[in-house]
Amino acid sequence: MDSINIKELAQKLNLSKSTISRAFRDHNDISSKTKERILAFAKELNYQPNHHASNLRAQKSKNIAVIVPEITNNFFSQAIDGIEKVASEKGYHVLIYLTSDCFEKEVSYVNDLYNGRADGIIMSVSGDATDQTYLNKLREKKMPLVFFDRGYDTVPTAKVTTNDYEISFEATTHLIKSGCRNIIYLMVNENLSIFKNRFQGYIDALKKFNINYNDEMLVYCGHNFDENYTAINKAFVKLRPDGVFASVERLAFATYYICNDLKLSIPKQVKVISFSSLEIAPLLNPPLTTITQPAFEMGVQAATLLFKKLLKKTDNPDEQIMLNSKIIIRSSTTG
Amino acid sequence: MDSINIKELAQKLNLSKSTISRAFRDHNDISSKTKERILAFAKELNYQPNHHASNLRAQKSKNIAVIVPEITNNFFSQAIDGIEKVASEKGYHVLIYLTSDCFEKEVSYVNDLYNGRADGIIMSVSGDATDQTYLNKLREKKMPLVFFDRGYDTVPTAKVTTNDYEISFEATTHLIKSGCRNIIYLMVNENLSIFKNRFQGYIDALKKFNINYNDEMLVYCGHNFDENYTAINKAFVKLRPDGVFASVERLAFATYYICNDLKLSIPKQVKVISFSSLEIAPLLNPPLTTITQPAFEMGVQAATLLFKKLLKKTDNPDEQIMLNSKIIIRSSTTG
Repeated sequence: MDSINIKELAQKLNLSKSTISRAFRDHNDISSKTKERILAFAKELNYQPNHHASNLRAQKSKNIAVIVPEITNNFFSQAIDGIEKVASEKGYHVLIYLTSDCFEKEVSYVNDLYNGRADGIIMSVSGDATDQTYLNKLREKKMPLVFFDRGYDTVPTAKVTTNDYEISFEATTHLIKSGCRNIIYLMVNENLSIFKNRFQGYIDALKKFNINYNDEMLVYCGHNFDENYTAINKAFVKLRPDGVFASVERLAFATYYICNDLKLSIPKQVKVISFSSLEIAPLLNPPLTTITQPAFEMGVQAATLLFKKLLKKTDNPDEQIMLNSKIIIRSSTTG
Repeated sequence: MDSINIKELAQKLNLSKSTISRAFRDHNDISSKTKERILAFAKELNYQPNHHASNLRAQKSKNIAVIVPEITNNFFSQAIDGIEKVASEKGYHVLIYLTSDCFEKEVSYVNDLYNGRADGIIMSVSGDATDQTYLNKLREKKMPLVFFDRGYDTVPTAKVTTNDYEISFEATTHLIKSGCRNIIYLMVNENLSIFKNRFQGYIDALKKFNINYNDEMLVYCGHNFDENYTAINKAFVKLRPDGVFASVERLAFATYYICNDLKLSIPKQVKVISFSSLEIAPLLNPPLTTITQPAFEMGVQAATLLFKKLLKKTDNPDEQIMLNSKIIIRSSTTG
């Protein structure tokens, strides 16, 4: 049997083309009775909706975009695995975009996504932003946005984060109780709230234990290995720290290289703790004590929030979810 | 000044709409003189092509799909960085798909990509294939396909690989010259030519040095940590190897955990070499000797081949590129 087109189907049913189309898109402004009638009749007449054109009209690409600063970081690759799991269950494809921490790239990607390439965005932001409000345009375009881990406070939207303040307080307390009195903090980006929260947890733990803090102990790191190495090495030579708090995993790696080069023993002379989702942390020399975020679960939750917004199944488009990280103590802070 | 539409522009130029459209798509079946005339006139009259509709008509999504077995593997994340670099220079977006080494997922993704979601595919295959020829349909659909690292021999297409046989021969020779006489080989998938080549390099090096080989020395590993641990541990208990050749990086990690658990010293009792793009290989205990593929460059080359095919700028759609890996000797095989 030949298939018929939407115009012929509409004529036979005495309905408009747009009603037929809405039935196939499962729109909620037509009654379920009408919908059933249309679908049954369509099946009988072997009508196949033109998916490609229908996607275009409905502005549904069945893609979701995931924008991340990097994928060679274990946190992001595990979070993407979590997002991918939920998306594939929903029949959506995941488009992954890498900003390499470059704000201009982030803006260019988001602007490009307006054209219907994706139906929603899950993003961990680059952080080098001057005007973050460009994202507010997404709301006007009704393009759902969910932040995970790194978001902008100036942009109200759904967000999945972890207990950065509490866990950083706990991690610093662990270093102090292990004997550290001169702990430097390795900062990656002070503009983002998650990094502010991590830093504040560190500061408040120092205060609680009456340990002096001065601005030199806050070490600003960069975007690549050489920049990180130079900044941390300078702090080591000047301050001779006995403890290091790394706010992201690559700063801990740079610290390990520096301690090797300066012939400083970890943990005897320097104790190191780091935010990290590295699965082989136990195989490092010495095994690294980590603050481990539930990366996969964060991806799952972020995708779940996005689909709630996309499918209009939420009353709270700015829902906030906070998951708990955990500290896994290994040899880099003990002994 | 108001903008005009394609119909009005075509009338003014006394050309067909399709000629105008082809000029904007940089088609090579109209003369450069006509093209210039159209573009100049269009600019003068403030004509803006409707990009979205034009993509649809031309079946150009401006996406390329990258299908990989995993992204928590450093080789793939670095290769994706390389692909992303070339694609973004060309104004294309990269859609990343994870098969988790599942052939059914691979087939489902590829079938889904026929609908115009992407203009071309770069793939490192899952390998659990029974009928790999499903990919030949891509050729009929004129959808360009490039394999990188892991491809199917039954599917003729462009490919970027490394000198797997030679480098594996060299790596095995290094183990033998370091004193190993009982080297087990950790296999991930014997159906794929790259893994066949790696294994053959190992076999031929054993032969050259008159070292006995029997089938037990070939250890079949699985898809997750527990399966790998069980298989390798069994071989350790039975064969007491003094050398391990890991064909992918996660098998080396499992070997490290097993040696820790069995209280075997690396490298004193067991020497370990592995294919790996792990940037922190020097920080492992002990630092891991690696066979390192030029992952980023492979991504760049694969994307370059794809765009050559996509833009019809090649006479050889099945071009093969082979890049050289290198062995970086560290403590896991010395001392």
